[in-house]
Amino acid sequence: MPSEPSRQLQVVPNPHPDRDYEVSLEVPEFTCLCPMTGQPDFATIRIRYVPGRHLVELKSIKLYAWSYRNERAFHEDVTNRILNDFVAVAAPRFIEVVGDFNVRGGIKTVVRASHGKRPDA
Amino acid sequence: MPSEPSRQLQVVPNPHPDRDYEVSLEVPEFTCLCPMTGQPDFATIRIRYVPGRHLVELKSIKLYAWSYRNERAFHEDVTNRILNDFVAVAAPRFIEVVGDFNVRGGIKTVVRASHGKRPDA
Amino acid sequence: MPSEPSRQLQVVPNPHPDRDYEVSLEVPEFTCLCPMTGQPDFATIRIRYVPGRHLVELKSIKLYAWSYRNERAFHEDVTNRILNDFVAVAAPRFIEVVGDFNVRGGIKTVVRASHGKRPDA
Amino acid sequence: MPSEPSRQLQVVPNPHPDRDYEVSLEVPEFTCLCPMTGQPDFATIRIRYVPGRHLVELKSIKLYAWSYRNERAFHEDVTNRILNDFVAVAAPRFIEVVGDFNVRGGIKTVVRASHGKRPDA
Amino acid sequence: MPSEPSRQLQVVPNPHPDRDYEVSLEVPEFTCLCPMTGQPDFATIRIRYVPGRHLVELKSIKLYAWSYRNERAFHEDVTNRILNDFVAVAAPRFIEVVGDFNVRGGIKTVVRASHGKRPDA
Amino acid sequence: MPSEPSRQLQVVPNPHPDRDYEVSLEVPEFTCLCPMTGQPDFATIRIRYVPGRHLVELKSIKLYAWSYRNERAFHEDVTNRILNDFVAVAAPRFIEVVGDFNVRGGIKTVVRASHGKRPDA
Amino acid sequence: MPSEPSRQLQVVPNPHPDRDYEVSLEVPEFTCLCPMTGQPDFATIRIRYVPGRHLVELKSIKLYAWSYRNERAFHEDVTNRILNDFVAVAAPRFIEVVGDFNVRGGIKTVVRASHGKRPDA
Amino acid sequence: MPSEPSRQLQVVPNPHPDRDYEVSLEVPEFTCLCPMTGQPDFATIRIRYVPGRHLVELKSIKLYAWSYRNERAFHEDVTNRILNDFVAVAAPRFIEVVGDFNVRGGIKTVVRASHGKRPDA
Amino acid sequence: MPSEPSRQLQVVPNPHPDRDYEVSLEVPEFTCLCPMTGQPDFATIRIRYVPGRHLVELKSIKLYAWSYRNERAFHEDVTNRILNDFVAVAAPRFIEVVGDFNVRGGIKTVVRASHGKRPDA
Amino acid sequence: MPSEPSRQLQVVPNPHPDRDYEVSLEVPEFTCLCPMTGQPDFATIRIRYVPGRHLVELKSIKLYAWSYRNERAFHEDVTNRILNDFVAVAAPRFIEVVGDFNVRGGIKTVVRASHGKRPDA
Repeated sequence: MPSEPSRQLQVVPNPHPDRDYEVSLEVPEFTCLCPMTGQPDFATIRIRYVPGRHLVELKSIKLYAWSYRNERAFHEDVTNRILNDFVAVAAPRFIEVVGDFNVRGGIKTVVRASHGKRPDA
Repeated sequence: MPSEPSRQLQVVPNPHPDRDYEVSLEVPEFTCLCPMTGQPDFATIRIRYVPGRHLVELKSIKLYAWSYRNERAFHEDVTNRILNDFVAVAAPRFIEVVGDFNVRGGIKTVVRASHGKRPDA
Repeated sequence: MPSEPSRQLQVVPNPHPDRDYEVSLEVPEFTCLCPMTGQPDFATIRIRYVPGRHLVELKSIKLYAWSYRNERAFHEDVTNRILNDFVAVAAPRFIEVVGDFNVRGGIKTVVRASHGKRPDA
Repeated sequence: MPSEPSRQLQVVPNPHPDRDYEVSLEVPEFTCLCPMTGQPDFATIRIRYVPGRHLVELKSIKLYAWSYRNERAFHEDVTNRILNDFVAVAAPRFIEVVGDFNVRGGIKTVVRASHGKRPDA
Repeated sequence: MPSEPSRQLQVVPNPHPDRDYEVSLEVPEFTCLCPMTGQPDFATIRIRYVPGRHLVELKSIKLYAWSYRNERAFHEDVTNRILNDFVAVAAPRFIEVVGDFNVRGGIKTVVRASHGKRPDA
Repeated sequence: MPSEPSRQLQVVPNPHPDRDYEVSLEVPEFTCLCPMTGQPDFATIRIRYVPGRHLVELKSIKLYAWSYRNERAFHEDVTNRILNDFVAVAAPRFIEVVGDFNVRGGIKTVVRASHGKRPDA
Repeated sequence: MPSEPSRQLQVVPNPHPDRDYEVSLEVPEFTCLCPMTGQPDFATIRIRYVPGRHLVELKSIKLYAWSYRNERAFHEDVTNRILNDFVAVAAPRFIEVVGDFNVRGGIKTVVRASHGKRPDA
Repeated sequence: MPSEPSRQLQVVPNPHPDRDYEVSLEVPEFTCLCPMTGQPDFATIRIRYVPGRHLVELKSIKLYAWSYRNERAFHEDVTNRILNDFVAVAAPRFIEVVGDFNVRGGIKTVVRASHGKRPDA
Repeated sequence: MPSEPSRQLQVVPNPHPDRDYEVSLEVPEFTCLCPMTGQPDFATIRIRYVPGRHLVELKSIKLYAWSYRNERAFHEDVTNRILNDFVAVAAPRFIEVVGDFNVRGGIKTVVRASHGKRPDA
Repeated sequence: MPSEPSRQLQVVPNPHPDRDYEVSLEVPEFTCLCPMTGQPDFATIRIRYVPGRHLVELKSIKLYAWSYRNERAFHEDVTNRILNDFVAVAAPRFIEVVGDFNVRGGIKTVVRASHGKRPDA
């Protein structure tokens, strides 16, 4: 069985650090395992952030998402952990992470967490 | 005839109690009975809450919704009762419950009730 | 030719009068007659209100809408009259009535009127 | 109470009688009364025909549809009667009438009847 | 707990028995119980038939669908049983029943069964 | 070649002048000519206004839109001129005009102009 | 008032005359005048053809459509005339013209005419 | 790292073996690994079959799909292998398997394979 | 200025050569230049084929599409040339290529060409 | 290989400089090259601005977008550079530029940057 990539986000310098602007990323191919049953869970992760001095490098986000593939994680917890990892590595001025999980037991769950001052509009 | 499960929501500790974040649940498979005619009513129930010290456990929500299957309930009343039950068991910082009921008599009804201070945006 | 039902909305007590919550009703099957030409007009009427001490009873709304079937009414006027009738009978804390009329002469018309203090969000 | 227009479809000569071609008409504003309860029913009527020597005149279709406004009619019956009236007046080479009725009792009904040899494709 | 209505479809005479035409019914509010777990299942039932000497009466279809509310039934079986019951009571020239069931275990199931000679196009 | 109707909006008294309410009009069939090339341009015009003492009469809006049919006009200019004409004739408390033009040179243009104090929500 | 371009479709040689293939063109910006009232009509014209020895040149189709701008034409007639003009100039192996006209008098009209042997699938 | 379930589809007797009917299954949560790069691939698998003497049991399909989670497989190959496995275990009268894979390198791939005589319509 | 990759499709052996099955590819990011004006054209290319002894390798399709980036090509011609190139390199049992081009001059063009015997359904 | 047009936006005088109004432009046909791999990237660029004394001329926007065709540019950088170029040439009172890029590595990226005081609503 193949091993997952290490869970390490990479950053690059923000080419326009003097302006507050927004980067939105949609990762529709997120999968982890249910902590109760061990069965696969599937989600779309949406990340929206206002970069500070750094951007998060796109390819490392792909690998980061992949690293959860065989890990057990609760919906509410994993969404907050992704938020924490982005904050730790890139110190964005604002960031929101949405975990949009597929139906389980006839119920759809969406978790939304943010850090920093939400920009207007 | 099978009996319905007991109407008891379960909670688990919130793993990130220091952050205000939002959990949205969509329960498209809600059915109860019309208090006037005894005929089945169908609705999608949408719950959006900012957890306090507890999360509401997903499987217990499924059983809770199921428990209304053979009970007579007005649209406006049942939506508010679901709101009250969530508040009583989980004390969320904010919660909104939407009952989105199917057409009856050519009219579609949606009831929306909330408790606590609505978060920004 | 059949006669239309009398135009009288009925109310029932609000089971949760201490909470500001919202009831939305969509009546897609509204028809009246054009005051200029006598030809049929068709609309969807959308009503959204925060009940006070009373809810408006659903079946009486169906009959109320039906009562316009053979009456001549301008788009702007009929929307405001429906608003006035709801206010008179149920004294909601807030109410908005939208009359969404089908295309006439290549133009689509939507009229939106409200009464009382609009709730947040 | 206004009276309905007489139920008489009008025809005009087909300007291209040597070619088999198709005319499709959608009448989304059809309403009649339920024969059981006298309450209003609403439907979209779709008509598709290959004209013979005559086209059915558009304005007369509007008046024809209007003429059902205060008449009691079963879904299955009214769809077939519209088909019969078109055949009688215009003798199309093929015609299909679809009555697409709004939800009643939680059930949506669509009736589809045709006359003549259905064209290819 | 209320009892379900008896499972008996009613028929009325077909007003146009000399013509092959089609009646489509959509019942989006079908619910029964899972034979394995006893938990509620939800489906939309679609019925399309070419009537013979009888139409199936609309209100009895509503009651018929309701009668499955507290019965355990496999997806494949219940779709075929509905087909058999329509054939037994109304002897349509053609009938197709589609059971379109909600997601269970991350999988959506649709069952489609028919009886008699399928009409063209 | 037929002549276009005169460009004159007509008004009628507002039957509910004491209430701030909103009238929305969508005119999907607007066409004028490109001032650079003389070729036809096509747009949907959306008008939303809070009437003062007068409503703008619907039929005159149809004729008004028609009057641009063979006139050369820039996207940004024509949207503002329509706004000015409505203000001049009807003195609405608020009005917004949106000109939503079809793709030209691979680019879609939407112009939005308003006059008066925008109402809440 | 500007004059319309002459109504002349242009052709270019088909670069792949040995293969039966299909070219589909959608002209959403077609407008002419109603022969009864002189008021503007709007349509989308869809053309699908299997070229013979010639393709119809794209820019000439734009000018051709434009040439109807101030001409009075019935829906059924104009669709067939467009078909005839394409056949006359390009002799396609198969061609279908669809005139999809906007709602008039609450009724939507679509006319579909073809020439030659319809290709499979 | 958790181990995947064994790849074994289970069958149950077909309760209506005398009728040709169709069962459609949609598995939107399929994931395997790219044989070239080892990176995760994602797909929706759609299976449509006419059962013979056996139905394929729903839960075993969930486990079967799960078993590919850490296996390397080409799009075209895995779709055909799923088809082969269904045929081997359930001997359906007809079966079609569609593998609808997410965009890779800016290209979306869908593979469709079938076995047995395709039913009409 | 960067140079485009060479225009050479690559093939790999078909792992299931004994079965007729279908592979569909959607390339939404196709761009070339207009032969008349030199301006960029944009299209989605859709390819559907039944492989013979070879599959066309996915990455080479991406490079192949890219190779047209700075080449002048007519819509009808480029679609047929892509078809010819696939046939030359992979000898599929059936193949259809659709070139779905963006609006130019207010007209949308879609070209559809195929080679070999079209499979059923 | 053709050369790209020079990167120079052109302006024309704003015909209504005394009013704050909004112009929205959607450029769905933007393509540049990835700075890492040299491969083509595709995006829709959306520009929304409140003009000052000048409008940006439409045709020059088309040429401006085209000028990026063979240039290497990061998503975040190119969006900000387009914003800067518009500000430099037209000095709008407010402007927002959105770069909506196609999926790469299974991730969709949208960049949103603005300059000046955002207008209400």
